Amino acid sequence: MIQGIGAAAGVAIGKAFVLPSWDWDVPDRRMEKVDLALEFERLYEGIRTSKTEIEVMKNEIKETVGVAESSIFDAHIAILEDPVFMSEIQGIIERQYKAAEVAVKEAIDHFVTMFDLLDDEYMKERALDIKDVGNRLLKHLLGTPDITLPADTQPYILVAKELSPSQLVHLNPNNVLGIVTLAGGKTSHSAIMARALGIPLVSGLENKLAEPLQTGDMLVIDGDEGKLYLDPSPDIIESYTEMAVKLSRRKEQLQLLASVEAVTKDGVHLRLAGNISSVKDLKLALKHGAEGVGLFRTEFLYMDRSTFPEEEEQYKVYRQVAETAGAHPVVIRTLDIGGDKQLEYFSLPEEDNPFLGYRAIRISLDRKEMFITQLTAILRASAHGKVKIMYPMISSVEEVREANQLLEEAKRGLHERGIAYDSDIQVGIMIEVPAAAAIADLLAAEADFFSIGTNDLVQYVLAVDRMNEKIAHMYNPYHPAVLRALRQTVLAAKEAGIPVSVCGEMAGDEKAIPIWNYLGVVDLSMSPQSLLRVKHRILNTTAKESQEIGARCYCLSTSAEIESELAIFTESGNYSSDSLA
Amino acid sequence: MIQGIGAAAGVAIGKAFVLPSWDWDVPDRRMEKVDLALEFERLYEGIRTSKTEIEVMKNEIKETVGVAESSIFDAHIAILEDPVFMSEIQGIIERQYKAAEVAVKEAIDHFVTMFDLLDDEYMKERALDIKDVGNRLLKHLLGTPDITLPADTQPYILVAKELSPSQLVHLNPNNVLGIVTLAGGKTSHSAIMARALGIPLVSGLENKLAEPLQTGDMLVIDGDEGKLYLDPSPDIIESYTEMAVKLSRRKEQLQLLASVEAVTKDGVHLRLAGNISSVKDLKLALKHGAEGVGLFRTEFLYMDRSTFPEEEEQYKVYRQVAETAGAHPVVIRTLDIGGDKQLEYFSLPEEDNPFLGYRAIRISLDRKEMFITQLTAILRASAHGKVKIMYPMISSVEEVREANQLLEEAKRGLHERGIAYDSDIQVGIMIEVPAAAAIADLLAAEADFFSIGTNDLVQYVLAVDRMNEKIAHMYNPYHPAVLRALRQTVLAAKEAGIPVSVCGEMAGDEKAIPIWNYLGVVDLSMSPQSLLRVKHRILNTTAKESQEIGARCYCLSTSAEIESELAIFTESGNYSSDSLA
Repeated sequence: MIQGIGAAAGVAIGKAFVLPSWDWDVPDRRMEKVDLALEFERLYEGIRTSKTEIEVMKNEIKETVGVAESSIFDAHIAILEDPVFMSEIQGIIERQYKAAEVAVKEAIDHFVTMFDLLDDEYMKERALDIKDVGNRLLKHLLGTPDITLPADTQPYILVAKELSPSQLVHLNPNNVLGIVTLAGGKTSHSAIMARALGIPLVSGLENKLAEPLQTGDMLVIDGDEGKLYLDPSPDIIESYTEMAVKLSRRKEQLQLLASVEAVTKDGVHLRLAGNISSVKDLKLALKHGAEGVGLFRTEFLYMDRSTFPEEEEQYKVYRQVAETAGAHPVVIRTLDIGGDKQLEYFSLPEEDNPFLGYRAIRISLDRKEMFITQLTAILRASAHGKVKIMYPMISSVEEVREANQLLEEAKRGLHERGIAYDSDIQVGIMIEVPAAAAIADLLAAEADFFSIGTNDLVQYVLAVDRMNEKIAHMYNPYHPAVLRALRQTVLAAKEAGIPVSVCGEMAGDEKAIPIWNYLGVVDLSMSPQSLLRVKHRILNTTAKESQEIGARCYCLSTSAEIESELAIFTESGNYSSDSLA
Repeated sequence: MIQGIGAAAGVAIGKAFVLPSWDWDVPDRRMEKVDLALEFERLYEGIRTSKTEIEVMKNEIKETVGVAESSIFDAHIAILEDPVFMSEIQGIIERQYKAAEVAVKEAIDHFVTMFDLLDDEYMKERALDIKDVGNRLLKHLLGTPDITLPADTQPYILVAKELSPSQLVHLNPNNVLGIVTLAGGKTSHSAIMARALGIPLVSGLENKLAEPLQTGDMLVIDGDEGKLYLDPSPDIIESYTEMAVKLSRRKEQLQLLASVEAVTKDGVHLRLAGNISSVKDLKLALKHGAEGVGLFRTEFLYMDRSTFPEEEEQYKVYRQVAETAGAHPVVIRTLDIGGDKQLEYFSLPEEDNPFLGYRAIRISLDRKEMFITQLTAILRASAHGKVKIMYPMISSVEEVREANQLLEEAKRGLHERGIAYDSDIQVGIMIEVPAAAAIADLLAAEADFFSIGTNDLVQYVLAVDRMNEKIAHMYNPYHPAVLRALRQTVLAAKEAGIPVSVCGEMAGDEKAIPIWNYLGVVDLSMSPQSLLRVKHRILNTTAKESQEIGARCYCLSTSAEIESELAIFTESGNYSSDSLA
């Protein structure tokens, strides 16, 4: 067994197929006779073809995976349009009389070496992108065929040194059981894509293998634990086969719970809603029995385009979501860009600490016209369903008041245009900044409802960026300070008589159920994929016992103690298939 | 009057001296006959001379300004050793047969253009550094004399397009009344240096002047308000002269308060201590009547060197500080690097959000050997004065326990070596992460004292990086959530019977005095420069009235309301020279 990094969950058992490396052999061809025009023409033709290919890939990914993932390829197109990269290539052709492919190869090497030397994560990722794009361009200049994966063989486990997003696109999930890469970690583009495709991925195996893996090697990979078994014993194969069968059976059985409500054994009903980014997500959520949308992330409407979406376009999407949800409520969160989410056409400043920077409501209140357009579109959709508005990243009473003034302006605008909207539309705020939890009582007087965004709240309360590998282990929703912030928020909401829900990842974690039961939180919004799992656990929960566990958590002083208290809960509801009966 | 950015405080009245721009004229000299060896020799000689010059500057700045400021020049030396930059220059000489100075000029232009195109603040700053270093190198290759500033004239106000740190070094503060730069803002290297030198600086005037300033123009600059007056009227000159005289008189009068204790009119004694980084700071603090050191920042011991300081070296510094402080307590904070503070020889990871990353105690607990060395050195110093230990960035009970275990290990080590230390040494923690304030009651059971670091606390509670210009206006210590975090911490300390002090910038802000009076905080630690000013305000304060103002602040829901409540306090103690009598 070799221990790597579990980058995408799941188990795969099968033979290895080792991907040939994408390193072209480029003979150093200098031109005797200067035919600059020809080489430039070859270069431009290669760029055009590469661009078209990337566009096609991007659209494929947009359809099959998602808009966010497809935007990875925008960075690739940008490289082909980058004046510095291009002038380097042209310079080598022009001044050194080298063939286009040699110039491209040298320019790639130059930039990759330079960016690697800078010792900057961001630049290193740019280097990878340049390699990927450059190799595509080289492929066209050399006339080399694409590396194709076997399609007619048995499904296999793909093994590669590193896998670029553009290579991942061409994987057929039906043929690829799992992936093993030597380089990479949890946050690489490949890992994001593998998770989206649902393919188990173990990475970070560099220098850990005594000798390279060979095509045909028998492998078992465990993407949850980051384990790779080479030539596994029959016992290992058997136990993982069993696990795989159980997982798939469990999946089928969970599906049966779609139309059941999430009620504990002693009759406490928790309303489970979906966190969505698109109509497609919403449909999945409804299929899994979601009682509405607790968080509609509108930023994906703003991504992957060249200008801000206009009112009409936004309205259509919001209306479609509202109508698809029918009688269920839909909470639309206003634009939450900044932090780690960027828009190309909206040049956000480079920031040293983007999570503590210009983002979400801070941008909306600064770019009032953009914000009013969005509010107007949401208001219009409110005539067609149970729509609510939610402001992200609120940290003060003033912000809520200012946002509400702009909402009034949007309402007046619609009124003047004679367009219908729900004049009693509910307006809530996200509680995700420590300041908001600390003054939840003051904010409750300004809002119709709260929704606790645990991901950011945990990050800020603990001062831990969970994407930072050096300290990610400190990111812990079960830290006593986090539990107190939750309690403070819930108590303030109850005192003020407004509803409070939870929409961060903690809502989709079964382990947190005792906390919700104890605090009396009954609205949870989570990713559509988590709904059935959480519902299943709730159906097997006795709220009274669960509450007691939650209460005890509030008497403990360390995360470790709290987690072991909560383990009493999770272990009591283990997922034997019997418990589904 | 032209409105710019006030980048370094103070007032200056005088004539302009316009700095000639540092743009060399480099004729495009190609070599007919290839004498590569000669050109390379010229290049290396230029690099050697430049390096020596930079080293000299660095040492000057270290002596006259400070270690932190001098480290700016390490980045410059690094450029002269950068393989990418050097290979670019060598490549141009070698392949294009160009003279060394032409190659340097082209390489500078290449990198500056490229880094500028990247649209990345960090890279832009690198571009400025490359320009500065490259120009120095060019100067040597061209044999051009240094631009010298007039030294024998009347003192003047220096005007420049942009001013590099290496140009600033050569300013004689006695000759330069103030500085005006077109480019730059509050956070530029030049601004940091100007503040350290105490020279008023107004910047950010690009595109704001109808025509360029001329040497000899009469100017008044106001570095507090960011104002530039061109050809000011006699009234303006008179009022600013008056202001300058008042400021200098007030400075003299404040000095008389050095030996007076900070006691309010109704007898409440506030103990004012100093925040220091060196023995030099400590002496200034004691000269201003500090009753000890509330915060000794040890990171400066670790900076500007090539390896970690050894136990003996640290011990000597800590002992000198302890002995210099005499009977006064000295709180030594363990290493607080990371965030915006880096060490060259300790390669910290590049982080997306360093403030939410690997820093302070997180590093110490990860690099145990380094930490134990520091703790051992502090313990040894504790035999020579009233030394206390303080851990920064604590966010959980576990961290305190783990740090204390290592402290016990350090004590055992000293015991075995038979070396004396204070076995009852007090161990405190910084309260600066929201989690720490939230669980202050739990932490109080683990620590001998608290010190509230308001700078970070405010940043984290509000999720605002105050160095980020786009949202710096949101950084506000008088936000109700911050006041609540302060109260929660103070109450927990009082409940547990341990002392609590404040050592962030808020402690040096007179406006906060009502908050401290209301909360019953009597220990404030601030920069030595602030001591007399704050003391003067306390001497003119009636604690009872001040407490009432503080109490009212806790009933308000917005920063604006709180600040206008506190304005009642600040306005009641205005700084007429009479009130000093």
